[in-house]
Amino acid sequence: MTIKEIYELSKKQDKSIEGKEVTIKGLVRGNRFMGNVGFILLNDGSCFSSLQIVYSSTDKKAQAIRMGCSISVKGKIHLTPEAKQIVELESMKIDLISDVEEDYVLQKQRMSFEYLREIPQWRVRTNTFNALFRIRSTLSYYIHEYFHKNGYLWIHTPIITGNDCEGEGQVFDVLASGDKVGESKYFNSPNPHLTVSGQLHVEPFALAYQKVYTFGPTFRAEKSNTTRHAAEFWMIEPEIAFADLDTLCKIEEEFLKYVVKNTIQDCEDDINVFASFIDKNLKTKLNDFLTKSFEFVEYSDCINLLKKAQKEGVKFENNDIDFGLDLNSEHEKYLTEVVFKKPIFLRNMPKDIKAFYMKLNDDNKTVQAVDLLTPGIGELCGGSVREDNYDLLLKRIKELKMPLESYKWYLDLRKNGSMPHAGFGLGFERLVMLVTGIDNIRDTQPYPRNYRNMLF
Amino acid sequence: MTIKEIYELSKKQDKSIEGKEVTIKGLVRGNRFMGNVGFILLNDGSCFSSLQIVYSSTDKKAQAIRMGCSISVKGKIHLTPEAKQIVELESMKIDLISDVEEDYVLQKQRMSFEYLREIPQWRVRTNTFNALFRIRSTLSYYIHEYFHKNGYLWIHTPIITGNDCEGEGQVFDVLASGDKVGESKYFNSPNPHLTVSGQLHVEPFALAYQKVYTFGPTFRAEKSNTTRHAAEFWMIEPEIAFADLDTLCKIEEEFLKYVVKNTIQDCEDDINVFASFIDKNLKTKLNDFLTKSFEFVEYSDCINLLKKAQKEGVKFENNDIDFGLDLNSEHEKYLTEVVFKKPIFLRNMPKDIKAFYMKLNDDNKTVQAVDLLTPGIGELCGGSVREDNYDLLLKRIKELKMPLESYKWYLDLRKNGSMPHAGFGLGFERLVMLVTGIDNIRDTQPYPRNYRNMLF
Repeated sequence: MTIKEIYELSKKQDKSIEGKEVTIKGLVRGNRFMGNVGFILLNDGSCFSSLQIVYSSTDKKAQAIRMGCSISVKGKIHLTPEAKQIVELESMKIDLISDVEEDYVLQKQRMSFEYLREIPQWRVRTNTFNALFRIRSTLSYYIHEYFHKNGYLWIHTPIITGNDCEGEGQVFDVLASGDKVGESKYFNSPNPHLTVSGQLHVEPFALAYQKVYTFGPTFRAEKSNTTRHAAEFWMIEPEIAFADLDTLCKIEEEFLKYVVKNTIQDCEDDINVFASFIDKNLKTKLNDFLTKSFEFVEYSDCINLLKKAQKEGVKFENNDIDFGLDLNSEHEKYLTEVVFKKPIFLRNMPKDIKAFYMKLNDDNKTVQAVDLLTPGIGELCGGSVREDNYDLLLKRIKELKMPLESYKWYLDLRKNGSMPHAGFGLGFERLVMLVTGIDNIRDTQPYPRNYRNMLF
Repeated sequence: MTIKEIYELSKKQDKSIEGKEVTIKGLVRGNRFMGNVGFILLNDGSCFSSLQIVYSSTDKKAQAIRMGCSISVKGKIHLTPEAKQIVELESMKIDLISDVEEDYVLQKQRMSFEYLREIPQWRVRTNTFNALFRIRSTLSYYIHEYFHKNGYLWIHTPIITGNDCEGEGQVFDVLASGDKVGESKYFNSPNPHLTVSGQLHVEPFALAYQKVYTFGPTFRAEKSNTTRHAAEFWMIEPEIAFADLDTLCKIEEEFLKYVVKNTIQDCEDDINVFASFIDKNLKTKLNDFLTKSFEFVEYSDCINLLKKAQKEGVKFENNDIDFGLDLNSEHEKYLTEVVFKKPIFLRNMPKDIKAFYMKLNDDNKTVQAVDLLTPGIGELCGGSVREDNYDLLLKRIKELKMPLESYKWYLDLRKNGSMPHAGFGLGFERLVMLVTGIDNIRDTQPYPRNYRNMLF
C-alpha cells in the first residue's frame, strides 16, 4: 500500500483500513520526540503528503533516526479525522535502510533555489522540487492524453538534423570521433546539428494523417543567460491539416485548458506548495486561465493600443512603437496584465519579424501568425498557418537567402497532394512555469543546461 | 466527420448515418473509372482504411483525378453491408485541392524499402509506412498510459550530458560555435555529448518517487551499419525502488503485454498489413507473446544448454561456449526459437560482460542482471538490480578505471537515504519491430539516422 492510497481511503473515511497492518518504505522528512511519544514524517514519493508515524518512548532506535534517512516501517493504520492529519501509522517496527552522512546537504534550514541548482541529485527531495517534478510529469501525461483522445499521432521527429528550421544559425554541432565542424564523415553531411524545432519534419506527416504532434527535446546555443531560456528544453508542436488561424487558436486554448485543468486536479497538494510559498496569487491566476476566454487581438490593434498608452504617459524602455515592432516583454506585459487582464492571441504579425514558412496575407505585409501571450509568462505559444503556395514559399526562401537545396524536399510538399495546414509550438517549461509560478526555467528541469552551466 | 468515425458507425450498422451529407478531405489512394461509374479511394489519415467515393460518368473532373492528389468531397453516406466495403460515399461534388507533378514519386508500382528510405517525406503515404507510424504512435501512447496508471513519474533526463553511462566512449560530441572537442567553453565542461542512457540521471528521482521512468532519444556513434542499430533511437527506462530481480521481470512482462495488447487492439487494420505482406506468422507470434508466460532462465543454465546442443551437433559460428560468453545473436536465437519457443529472461550474467552499476551476487562472479530475449528480435530489454553498496560500487568504478570525479555525485546517492532499486532499458524501435515484423530499424523511424546516412 502506498501513502497516496492510504490518504485516498482516509479521506473517504473508509473504516476497512482502521487497524490494518502495512509496511511503508521511504525517506524521513522529519523526526520529533516529545518525551513519551515520537513522530516521524515518512514520504514514499507516491504523493506530496508524508505519513505521520507514531512511535513509543521505548523505541530508542527510532529516536535516533535523522531527516533524510530511508526507513521501513511496519505498523497499524489509525484514522484520526479530528486531528490535524486525518490518518497516522502506529509503529510496530522501524528498520533503518540507509543513514545519511554527517554533512548531508539537505538540512533543516531553508536553502536558496540558486544553491539547490548546484545539487540536482538532491533537490528533488525538498518540498518544492518534489512537488514540481510531480506537476511536470502530470502535465506531460495530459499533453499526450489530449492528443491521443483527439486523434493526433505522435511523430518522433529527429534530434540530429541538417535543416535549421528557424534559419537562425544558433545551433549545437554534432560530431562523431574524427569529424570536423562543417564536414561530418560520420553522417556524410556538412552540418549535422541538434534540432531547434520538429516542425518542418512533422509537416509531411500532417499531410498524411491530418493531425499530428511532436513532443521532444529542442536546443538553442544562445550565449546568453536569461531566466526564460535554456540550451535544452522540451517542445510540443502540433500540426493540423485544414486548420485556419481561428481553428488553430481554438485548438490551442482547448488543449491548454485541458492539460492545466487535469493537472491541477490531480496535483492539488503540489499546487498548494506553490500557492503558499512561491506565488500567493497562483490559484486566482490559474482559475482565470481556465475560466476566461482567451482574447483574439490583431497585431495592428495592439500597436495602436501601445501608442495610445504612450500618449497617456505610460513609459516603456523601448518606445519605438510602430508597425514592424517585435514586441518586447514589457509590451506583452502591458497588453496582457494592464489592458486585457487575460491571455491574448496576438494575430497577423508583420512578415519581416516572422519565420519564412508562415502564410502571407493578401496585404503582402503580414503573415497568418499567432502568438499566445499570457499574464506573467509572456509568450507561451507561437504558431501560424503555413505557406502552402509553392511560388510564394520559394520567393520567401530566396529573399531570405536560405540554402535552397536544403529546402527542396520541403518545398516539394506544396506540389504533390498538398493541403493547407497550421500548427503551433509550445515551450514545455513555460507551461510548467505558468502552472507553478516558478520564474526561472532552470528550476523547472531535472538537470538544466544553460550557457556556462551543465552538471553531470 | 472522419473516415474512422464513418467506419466505426458503419460496423455497428448505425442507420442514422445512412444518407447523411458529409465533407471529407484527404489524399487519393486510387481512381478507377468503369464506364458509367467511377470509384475514388480517399484516405484522411484518421485510420488505415480508405473510403470508397462513388462518382457518376458525367463528372469528367473526377475521372481526371490522379493518385496522390488531395481532394475535398461532399457526398452522402450509404451503408452497403452486403458489399466488399461496408460503406461508401456517393459524391455530390469533388474539388481538387492539390494535384501531383508528372514525376511524383509514389506511382502505382511497388517500391523497395531501400528506395523508400531515400524519401522519408513521401513514404508515410504508402500503405506499409502509413500503418507503421500509426502503430509507432499508438505504442508510445500506451507506454505513457501504463506508467501513469501505475503511479510512475516521467522524468525528462538530459540529452546533453558529461556522464557516459555505459562507459563506452562511442558518443557524439556537442559543440557550440567557438568550442573545441575536449573543451566546451559554452558549457564549461570538458566533454559535453549526447546521452547514451538516462539511467544514471533518473536514479536520484527513483529514490524520491520510488517509481519513475524516462522515454526519450538516446544516441550511439558506432561506425557500423546493422539492421538493428541506429545512431539515434528512443529508449524507455523505468527505475523502481525496492524491486528485486523477480519483481523487475514481472514488471517488464506486465508492461510489455499491456502495451502490445492495447496497440494491436487499436490498430487491427494496420497490423493486418504486416501480417499479410511482411510476416505471415505475425499474428501467431503476437498471440504467443501475449499469452505465453515469459521463461525465467539462469545464464549458467543457458551456457549448459548451448554446450549440450553443441555436443548434439548444433553448429554455431561462435563455438567458444563457456561461462563468460556474451551471447551472440545466433545463441539467443537458438535459445528463444529452438529451446524455449517464447521470450526468456536470461538472468545473473557474468559481471565482466555487464555494466559497472549492476549488483554483485554473493558468488562474486555474476551480477543481478536480466536480458529479455524474444524469438525473432533477440534482446528486447536489458535490466538489473543496481549496486547499492557504496564500497562495492566504488571498487568496481576503480577496477574499470572510470573517472571517479565524474561519478562522485552518483556514488553519494548510496550514502544518503539510499534504497535498493532496479530498472531496465527498452529500445523503443525494437518494440516497433516486434509488433510489425519489420526487420530493419531504419524502417521504424520517421527519419532514420545511421552511419553515413542522414536525410534533412
